[in-house]
Amino acid sequence: MSGKDYTEMWKGLGLNLENHAGLLGVLSKTYKDIYLNQKNRPRAMDYFDFVISEVHGLRIEEILNAKKTGRKVVGAFCVYVPEEIVLAADGVCRCGCAGAEVGSDQAEKFIPRNTCALIKAFMGFKLSGLCPYVESTDLIVGETTCDGKKKAYESLNDITGKVYVMEIPHMKTAEDRKLWLSEVKRFRDRMEELSGKKITVEALKKAAGVVNAKRKALQRLSRLRAAAPAPISGLDALLVNQVSFYDDPLRFTEMTNRLCDELEERVARKNGMAEKGAPRILISGSPMAIPNWKLHAIVEGSGAVAVGEESCIGERNHRDLLDESFSSMDEAMDKLASRYLGIDCACFTPNNERFDNIKTLTKSLKADGVIHYALQFCTPYMMEAYRAEKAVAGTPFLRIETDYSMEDFGQLQTRVEAFLEQIKG
Amino acid sequence: MSGKDYTEMWKGLGLNLENHAGLLGVLSKTYKDIYLNQKNRPRAMDYFDFVISEVHGLRIEEILNAKKTGRKVVGAFCVYVPEEIVLAADGVCRCGCAGAEVGSDQAEKFIPRNTCALIKAFMGFKLSGLCPYVESTDLIVGETTCDGKKKAYESLNDITGKVYVMEIPHMKTAEDRKLWLSEVKRFRDRMEELSGKKITVEALKKAAGVVNAKRKALQRLSRLRAAAPAPISGLDALLVNQVSFYDDPLRFTEMTNRLCDELEERVARKNGMAEKGAPRILISGSPMAIPNWKLHAIVEGSGAVAVGEESCIGERNHRDLLDESFSSMDEAMDKLASRYLGIDCACFTPNNERFDNIKTLTKSLKADGVIHYALQFCTPYMMEAYRAEKAVAGTPFLRIETDYSMEDFGQLQTRVEAFLEQIKG
Repeated sequence: MSGKDYTEMWKGLGLNLENHAGLLGVLSKTYKDIYLNQKNRPRAMDYFDFVISEVHGLRIEEILNAKKTGRKVVGAFCVYVPEEIVLAADGVCRCGCAGAEVGSDQAEKFIPRNTCALIKAFMGFKLSGLCPYVESTDLIVGETTCDGKKKAYESLNDITGKVYVMEIPHMKTAEDRKLWLSEVKRFRDRMEELSGKKITVEALKKAAGVVNAKRKALQRLSRLRAAAPAPISGLDALLVNQVSFYDDPLRFTEMTNRLCDELEERVARKNGMAEKGAPRILISGSPMAIPNWKLHAIVEGSGAVAVGEESCIGERNHRDLLDESFSSMDEAMDKLASRYLGIDCACFTPNNERFDNIKTLTKSLKADGVIHYALQFCTPYMMEAYRAEKAVAGTPFLRIETDYSMEDFGQLQTRVEAFLEQIKG
Repeated sequence: MSGKDYTEMWKGLGLNLENHAGLLGVLSKTYKDIYLNQKNRPRAMDYFDFVISEVHGLRIEEILNAKKTGRKVVGAFCVYVPEEIVLAADGVCRCGCAGAEVGSDQAEKFIPRNTCALIKAFMGFKLSGLCPYVESTDLIVGETTCDGKKKAYESLNDITGKVYVMEIPHMKTAEDRKLWLSEVKRFRDRMEELSGKKITVEALKKAAGVVNAKRKALQRLSRLRAAAPAPISGLDALLVNQVSFYDDPLRFTEMTNRLCDELEERVARKNGMAEKGAPRILISGSPMAIPNWKLHAIVEGSGAVAVGEESCIGERNHRDLLDESFSSMDEAMDKLASRYLGIDCACFTPNNERFDNIKTLTKSLKADGVIHYALQFCTPYMMEAYRAEKAVAGTPFLRIETDYSMEDFGQLQTRVEAFLEQIKG
């Protein structure tokens, strides 16, 4: 994909070079077919195209250069990991590979076949030596959001010895908040230990500014998608959200705001990406890691436009800012705990905030229909689909369960097309 | 099954009489085929045969009579619910129906198809009006042990309005213990509110004696199964463990000790249930609720003997006693919290105690092989199967995933037979 030759770098990370070349070849072709074939894209997407072309190249080189200067690299698979703490310890925070069907056979030596595609993927990427992120990571931060991840991290730690787990409680009572606050502090201590650097209030303040600016740029993008016609495809907006988990946060914020400037002009000129009258779809549910673009490709290939992602890669990641008005370490920890415990993940019982948010988004984004997307065996989101449907009663609602394979592509397409017909009446 | 006519009682509970008669008919036939056809059973099993014949009859009548005197009835689906607290509020504590494939179609209107059989069953029994236990219950106590139950309880509460959920943490740190202690106290308060009775230290002490005596009887039964030849079939021992979740605790303890007296005589006379040299199998994993006798029937029908259940319906339920040496309410709550947090459920990360316990049991019960039994989609136990196998490396190990249907009976039989051949070498 990239022009530069990174073979030596990948060799140094211990990647399986032959299979890795194959993987990048498939990614490149898929990206071309799905993304580059779109018409009338915003010009500012050129940056994100470049990021994808360098996702295992330049970004890894940057990370390795950061490591050479003594900075520590933290990998995560969840929006609960407080990025501010990583940055305040001068660390680099980004996600590991988890979005493609890779190394399933090897993963199944450690975890059951009936495991969700995302978990199978992060295990498979590691075991097959195809993820330069996990190989360059000093600490992998897991969490207890679902049974599958909770138990898979035990195996991932057996394999890598680098896994640290944060406990996310099941409820949001005062006692749960105490537990979570202690987890946030424990993570701060672990980051200090890892980096050998004291985390100060000033460093946390600076980090809060950086991460909030990123969230604000993503919020701005979300709001712009409320325009009719939508100024950007759901595929492109999803990509921006996905890239936010990998990219340098300052550069990402700048480039996303640049994109939003262009989208504002488009909105003013009513220059939409979608056809006039195209059904507007809110997609809600399980996260979609790069390169999981399947559902968006089907929805937009069928003449509709995805106007929002009620998802960890989407609203759940950027809806809430961190309150920056802290002036002591205790206050900072307290505000961090509040901000992250506010996330409306399906791991909580009850999780009524999520249903309220789905209702609000459906309205604010003028969605004509909701597609609830769950990875197969993702019990928390599969289970919540029933209540989500009740929450937006009256709005057409389609429940989908799938994985990363392309085998059900045609079948899903048929279901989505029928759903869109229902919307058009 | 029973001689008495309970039609009016079942009608009063709102059961679906026609389907309920069908269910009892199937249960009766299955019990006859699996249990009553066994040879050389301990005479003292006659009590447990009677209990099963009256499981929806006399026991329900007893419970309804208790309700008439003002006692409250608490239903649970997990060994984390502290029975001592229910008894100390003069309540009756027992499990709901969850062991048969009933009402799946109706359950699937609320929960996904890919849900474990136990959860689907408790939803299905309720929705199809076939469980007199849930209908006579004043409070259903759920817990957060797995994603499936955690989220299904939300729907069960929508349907019944009677669900109360205890939060089981994911870890066993000092902070988790604080959270769990507060949950134990919250449950005590809820039981006081429900019963209108103050829970005293004296009442807790008395309840601790009752529940510990039941545990000691079950421990005694477990130890007797270590004898070679085993004095009781795994089917019968499983049944006793299952009945412990439904029966009056005092009577149950008396009858189990009576059974153990007889088994002691059998051990002295080397009068075994199994053929000499029959492979001895430890069964480990997901719980088996009445009438889930499938795996034991296959194992023992193939000439082996099940000598232990490393399971919630088995060791996990009775391994640890409650320390009765408390003299204040705070001490009592503290000891209750410790006793229940000690349970080695797969919901914890890490859960190394369980693997130690599997090793210890394999040795103490002189097991020739371990069959790891997981309900399909029971992620926590499915996931731990891999580490369980490593824990007993060197001992033949078979991993099974199944549900309540009989469709895979022949296939499982073939696998179990091949496994037994491997053991016999």
